[in-house]
Amino acid sequence: MTDATAVTSRRREATRAKLLDAAAKVFAEVGLDAASVEAICERAGFTRGAFYSNFETKDELFLELAGRVARSRVDGVRERVALLEQEGGALAGSDPLEIVQQVLDVSGDDRLAILLMSEIRIHALRDPKLATAFLAQDAEMRASVAQIITDIGAAGLISFRLPADDVARLMLTVWESESVRATMAGLDYEAVCRVTGEELARVAQLVIEPPQN
Amino acid sequence: MTDATAVTSRRREATRAKLLDAAAKVFAEVGLDAASVEAICERAGFTRGAFYSNFETKDELFLELAGRVARSRVDGVRERVALLEQEGGALAGSDPLEIVQQVLDVSGDDRLAILLMSEIRIHALRDPKLATAFLAQDAEMRASVAQIITDIGAAGLISFRLPADDVARLMLTVWESESVRATMAGLDYEAVCRVTGEELARVAQLVIEPPQN
Repeated sequence: MTDATAVTSRRREATRAKLLDAAAKVFAEVGLDAASVEAICERAGFTRGAFYSNFETKDELFLELAGRVARSRVDGVRERVALLEQEGGALAGSDPLEIVQQVLDVSGDDRLAILLMSEIRIHALRDPKLATAFLAQDAEMRASVAQIITDIGAAGLISFRLPADDVARLMLTVWESESVRATMAGLDYEAVCRVTGEELARVAQLVIEPPQN
Repeated sequence: MTDATAVTSRRREATRAKLLDAAAKVFAEVGLDAASVEAICERAGFTRGAFYSNFETKDELFLELAGRVARSRVDGVRERVALLEQEGGALAGSDPLEIVQQVLDVSGDDRLAILLMSEIRIHALRDPKLATAFLAQDAEMRASVAQIITDIGAAGLISFRLPADDVARLMLTVWESESVRATMAGLDYEAVCRVTGEELARVAQLVIEPPQN
């Protein structure tokens, strides 16, 4: 890549990032339907031209935003698993449930992320094209989590009663539902994290094979 | 109750029912936000006065509609459990999983019901008053399902690894999530029922205590 192309690339990335951040702010204030391309461009300080050379539609931008939420969830989990594996010796005698609670630190989800995922689901329910893209992203996240679960199994830390993909599906389902319910109940950020984590630990207890003593 | 009061009561019930049915139709066409009180009244053939003497707000009507969905789910489950208990002898040797699959016939949920529950959640996420009412209804449904689970346990049919309330919470969470995902994938009504039922059976397998042979 030439220097000029690299510069254009970085500028494009920066524009894209600013549009995504502006969209997140506008969304927080008015929700998905009312968050117009105009409002997003105004907030970002860009023209519609800049918007449409980065995103084909408003839905595409918001799906990308939701994707960032999803990826940060998974990255957080993956990092903590890696950390635990490095601590190696400390794990051998640990209660599997404790391991799970450490790994599933759900502090990535703020109210905005929860609102966004929920509203995108509604749009996807009524728009087949968005639905396909959403489900693809959903499957990607599930596969990432399944890989983490497979790695945990391979490291001999924990055995599971279900295939990794089914465990991933269940954990992500519960994660989503419980964080929505807790947010709806008006709990603050820390409380949302805590109750969601507790429910995930309860479910983890169901899917973990008891140690053969 | 005098005859006159009884007649007024029945007329009021009939008006209420017509408004609810009209609201369901308008909702199906345009979604929750665009389903105005005017449009609902027009569809039902009533005045705004008739609307507001039955419902304080549009949200209240839609929450009632969602409540009907929830109650019909639970009633369906309860009926099938009662039927199985009557068949008594046939159950004793049955595979618990088969029992569960019979009980959890999820054919009550059509696409409309799924859309409605999802859109009400969004509104509740942004409206604390609606959230309180929604969560109360959610808790009511959970308590009903927990009672069914308790009854199943008491009849000696199946034992569970978690308290009835936790089982109910998990099953309802999975029911909701999977039917949304299947609907989003554009599956037809029967396929939505089937895949949702399969996922519920998988989860049921996790929460059922294996028989002591």
